[in-house]
Amino acid sequence: MQHYTGALDRLIDQLGRLPGIGRKTAQRLAFHIINLSEAEVMALSDSIAQAKLNIKYCSVCCNISESEKCSICMDEKRSDEIICVVADPRDVAAMERAKDFKGKYHVLHGVISPMDGVTPDMIKIRELLHRVADGNVKEIIMATNPTIEGEATAMYVAKLIKPMGVKVSRIAHGLPVGADIEYADEVTISKALEGRREL
Amino acid sequence: MQHYTGALDRLIDQLGRLPGIGRKTAQRLAFHIINLSEAEVMALSDSIAQAKLNIKYCSVCCNISESEKCSICMDEKRSDEIICVVADPRDVAAMERAKDFKGKYHVLHGVISPMDGVTPDMIKIRELLHRVADGNVKEIIMATNPTIEGEATAMYVAKLIKPMGVKVSRIAHGLPVGADIEYADEVTISKALEGRREL
Repeated sequence: MQHYTGALDRLIDQLGRLPGIGRKTAQRLAFHIINLSEAEVMALSDSIAQAKLNIKYCSVCCNISESEKCSICMDEKRSDEIICVVADPRDVAAMERAKDFKGKYHVLHGVISPMDGVTPDMIKIRELLHRVADGNVKEIIMATNPTIEGEATAMYVAKLIKPMGVKVSRIAHGLPVGADIEYADEVTISKALEGRREL
Repeated sequence: MQHYTGALDRLIDQLGRLPGIGRKTAQRLAFHIINLSEAEVMALSDSIAQAKLNIKYCSVCCNISESEKCSICMDEKRSDEIICVVADPRDVAAMERAKDFKGKYHVLHGVISPMDGVTPDMIKIRELLHRVADGNVKEIIMATNPTIEGEATAMYVAKLIKPMGVKVSRIAHGLPVGADIEYADEVTISKALEGRREL
């Protein structure tokens, strides 16, 4: 552990707290930063503070937003009758890239994972139930990841919502477009067979 | 390329400019940052701005410093007669860890590397010559890396300083302590033989 001046040590310490950034990388980044122009450093420093100060969760769908309601929830061209439930704001961005979904979203901010100590009340399931109870929702699409936790969360939410008379569906599992059957894992192939559709 | 809110996009963009941080990592870091507490985010943001605002180069040795002269240059217990010349402030920290050197340092901030467009006037050689001309320096130890550029820089500086009547030495090359001769490269073995000392 080597020491520099106070301000540099503090910077290395702060950078080293970020995930995936060890002490060596933090040092390298710190030296890079002090060699940038003052304007560049202030732009970096500001962007960090401003992101924290400006970004909140949408009061409706819990997606990240800079206003009380996010742009997707405020978009009147999108249907309120179908809600796609995802685990993370990044999943909303991924779904939006596909440009196919014209409903609204709901971001759970996690999946149920007893092993990691994440219980149903720690993710935004209650908010989803309120939306379904209040609105004219016809269908909930569970778009959590096809992992054990993602599946369990989808099942859990489905069990709560079905009794409310709302259809709950799950995104299809199968071979990704462009994939090679030869190299696909068995579970994916099983899922692809199970989900086959008549041509 | 996916888009989020303005502030988050700006943060991802800023983080992605750092060396070794691609867009995916920048996204992961940005989401980590907005999930930190406000105090933690401000500590990170401040440490970046403060490091840039407070850290300057020591007017004597060009090492990083928060005052006009660095703590090593101000240390009266250290000899002014011997200067260890290194390429980078990180090398000063590494030398200091060895706790063996009791002279002063001079940081070149780079090595001569025509391939990368670094010419002698772009590193702090002039400042070193002024120090040698002004002071009572008896010996200059060239502690640049044992690479082609490091050797060339050591030779270049030696040629300028020797005519001033000052001894110029080079740190020893050889097998690192704890190394295995079996796995050492030929050049290191040659250097170790060349630099052998009588027991």
